Amino acid sequence: MIDPKHLQHFAAVVGDDNIYSDKAHLLAYSYDATRERFEPDAVLFPRHEQDVSDILRYCDEHGIVIVPRGAGSGFTGGALPSHGGIVLAFEKHMNKILEIDMQNMVAVVQPGVINMDLQRAVEEVGLFYPPDPASQDYSTIGGNVSENAGGMRAAKYGITKDYVMAIRAVLPNGDVVKAGKRTIKDVAGYNIAGILIASEGTLAVTTEVTLKLIAKPKMTKTAMGVFPSVTEAMEAVYKTMASGVTPVAMEFLDNLTIRAVEQTFSKGLPVDAGAILVTDVDGNLEPDLDFQLAQIEKVFRENGCSDFVIAKDKAEAADLWFARRNASQSLAVYGSKKLNEDVTVPRSALPGLLEKFYAIAEKYDINIPCFGHTGDGNVHTNVMVDGKDPEQVKIGYKAIEEVFQATIDMGGTLSGEHGIGLAKAPYMGMAFTDEEMNLFKAIKKAFDPNNILNPNKMGLD
Amino acid sequence: MIDPKHLQHFAAVVGDDNIYSDKAHLLAYSYDATRERFEPDAVLFPRHEQDVSDILRYCDEHGIVIVPRGAGSGFTGGALPSHGGIVLAFEKHMNKILEIDMQNMVAVVQPGVINMDLQRAVEEVGLFYPPDPASQDYSTIGGNVSENAGGMRAAKYGITKDYVMAIRAVLPNGDVVKAGKRTIKDVAGYNIAGILIASEGTLAVTTEVTLKLIAKPKMTKTAMGVFPSVTEAMEAVYKTMASGVTPVAMEFLDNLTIRAVEQTFSKGLPVDAGAILVTDVDGNLEPDLDFQLAQIEKVFRENGCSDFVIAKDKAEAADLWFARRNASQSLAVYGSKKLNEDVTVPRSALPGLLEKFYAIAEKYDINIPCFGHTGDGNVHTNVMVDGKDPEQVKIGYKAIEEVFQATIDMGGTLSGEHGIGLAKAPYMGMAFTDEEMNLFKAIKKAFDPNNILNPNKMGLD
Repeated sequence: MIDPKHLQHFAAVVGDDNIYSDKAHLLAYSYDATRERFEPDAVLFPRHEQDVSDILRYCDEHGIVIVPRGAGSGFTGGALPSHGGIVLAFEKHMNKILEIDMQNMVAVVQPGVINMDLQRAVEEVGLFYPPDPASQDYSTIGGNVSENAGGMRAAKYGITKDYVMAIRAVLPNGDVVKAGKRTIKDVAGYNIAGILIASEGTLAVTTEVTLKLIAKPKMTKTAMGVFPSVTEAMEAVYKTMASGVTPVAMEFLDNLTIRAVEQTFSKGLPVDAGAILVTDVDGNLEPDLDFQLAQIEKVFRENGCSDFVIAKDKAEAADLWFARRNASQSLAVYGSKKLNEDVTVPRSALPGLLEKFYAIAEKYDINIPCFGHTGDGNVHTNVMVDGKDPEQVKIGYKAIEEVFQATIDMGGTLSGEHGIGLAKAPYMGMAFTDEEMNLFKAIKKAFDPNNILNPNKMGLD
Repeated sequence: MIDPKHLQHFAAVVGDDNIYSDKAHLLAYSYDATRERFEPDAVLFPRHEQDVSDILRYCDEHGIVIVPRGAGSGFTGGALPSHGGIVLAFEKHMNKILEIDMQNMVAVVQPGVINMDLQRAVEEVGLFYPPDPASQDYSTIGGNVSENAGGMRAAKYGITKDYVMAIRAVLPNGDVVKAGKRTIKDVAGYNIAGILIASEGTLAVTTEVTLKLIAKPKMTKTAMGVFPSVTEAMEAVYKTMASGVTPVAMEFLDNLTIRAVEQTFSKGLPVDAGAILVTDVDGNLEPDLDFQLAQIEKVFRENGCSDFVIAKDKAEAADLWFARRNASQSLAVYGSKKLNEDVTVPRSALPGLLEKFYAIAEKYDINIPCFGHTGDGNVHTNVMVDGKDPEQVKIGYKAIEEVFQATIDMGGTLSGEHGIGLAKAPYMGMAFTDEEMNLFKAIKKAFDPNNILNPNKMGLD
């Protein structure tokens, strides 16, 4: 437990209204989407960058642990105060869109801005912020930057890191640094913004982000292809991308996922299909979209696609997307506990990867339904078990380990989107050599010599 | 001078054929495009990654300085052995394109591969590697990564960092690390590749780079607009980009540059124009290109463009590009010494920036012709003086300092493309706070605690 004199100090810094240390509030800030719980000693709501700097400097001097938190929507425990200490939360004050610069096509935001609020604000003026994590309705830009959030549009538009032009951040010692500029090109000094992205709040606390915007494409069309086998669908994915067309999204559901959605919602889905692919294309001209769709249909049909449907309007497009958007929740039909991972492989490895996953499922007599962002090789892999049966849960974790090993063997990564946090920390040794882990630790030490900032994460301790 | 026993050791590692220590060769490796000269003690040509590791580990143990070198085409001295020591060169052995993976649209190359050789190889199979620094005919991918090279196509396609998916590198202690994957998404561990890019060979030695490729657009068209004033041209640049069209390139020449090219080559250029803009658009469909060109013409004409020409074929396109491609060499008409900088500002600051530059020129009674990549705010700023007159050279450097200050005041960067190296090291204090410089130094120390790798660069010593 933290010494009460520290809490008094923090109250003096941020004001009594901006510190919580009562049981109910500590509980509210003790969890994230992993459902693990760790209570902090207090929650602070900094009013501005100077507060963040004052808090960090004091914590550094007194060895107090600090955990920055966005919306708490992470799947790997990155925002959990696993060592207690102070949670820094930005939703009360540091939650403003500071500027939308139309001339340079840039937005400047505070960390607490919600992703979808930013998307809406820039679209109102004809601009576009592509990163769209599934958590977009509640996750914050600060959290998105810390985890390098992806989303469905990554196949064409990339991920958070591709849109971060500059970051203002406070180092653990209280120093404020600016990294990057409102320019496409900037090669003066080390790429600090580059290393802060995806650092999961372990190196510095972000206080302001400058994001690149692009012009909003004038139109989007949606299509769906039905495939007899998941292997054929996966072949169609990478062959489409390699054919010169880059769809905005190229999402898949495997047979188990299709059945789960159908069982839950009765939408008339093709329950005997090996897989379906749902895809969006966009652009500024009708002929361009039709050209893209024709190319996609050609590659799909060459790879076994029996049924190819193009949505005629928004309502039909929403229908085609329904199964994908409701995939995750529907999987409950296979078990009360879902161990969901977000492994990612080079696209051409997808067919082989899924074959391996199904072999693992068969070996352990469990279901591993898969869906996700195949356009960028990112497979949401769901190991389903009975959460009340400890033996089943143990088997589930064994299967996960094999899922990771198969992914790494095929040149993939433990995480395409969710990060490492606490949940994947035990697997870092599978993915990285001792030399690589030593380098991570040296970088952590360079930024945070006293290890006060989000310790115990990413397998660094 | 290095102890001969070290040279014997290195000869034993790489073989007698792969070490130079004779005067003629040391001279050949003593310079780069800055024309400064520093002789190394020896030049080594590692045969493979293991050689690099063995060399670095030995140097680290014995405190021997190592300077990795690409083609020596840099403008800031990044590859100069300013403290002597060993130059590591890759053009003899580590110069292979290891793989072009068409399925995943990725190339894997060694650091010594020449940029244009890679471009040609991937275009032969319908793919595209966009980064095109002016040095593309001789500069290497290793050098491009170290400097985060840009080029003309950055406005639409970004720069080297946007194409680096993974880097294999050797740390100063000899450890080999792999950073990144052949996947769009990878958020496991710190973004080591992100910090190695643009680190100017001060953190690690790159031994292999995995690069993202895209589908080659099927067609390109070129247009040129003539403007009465540079201010109107600069307004047209950022208004075009903000209108929703993203040209591949949007290059400008100011009046002084136009006159210099005309004086040198007599091509019938509009010598009374305030500026000309040359632009390329690309895509897969004729109507898409025409749509883009119509939009560009509209914005250009709204901003004072008197003459707008679209090239009818490749020969006419080459004609329109002639002035831009020959701008740099033509400037010799204004003086024997060219202090050329590559400052970059947010695009909307371009009109004001150029006004300031011309005011600086007037104040010192010198010429500062400007041209460059306005589509991304990157202005090649050429302070022209008589190199034989020490007083003029002194004035030139005073002007440069004011050029940098004006750039920084307008939210810009010391360097959009060339890096810091030795040449811009004295100006780092203008662009970065002490806190930021301390962070750079801490990162340098985390990678290279004994400061053996390219010391004395980037203002870090």
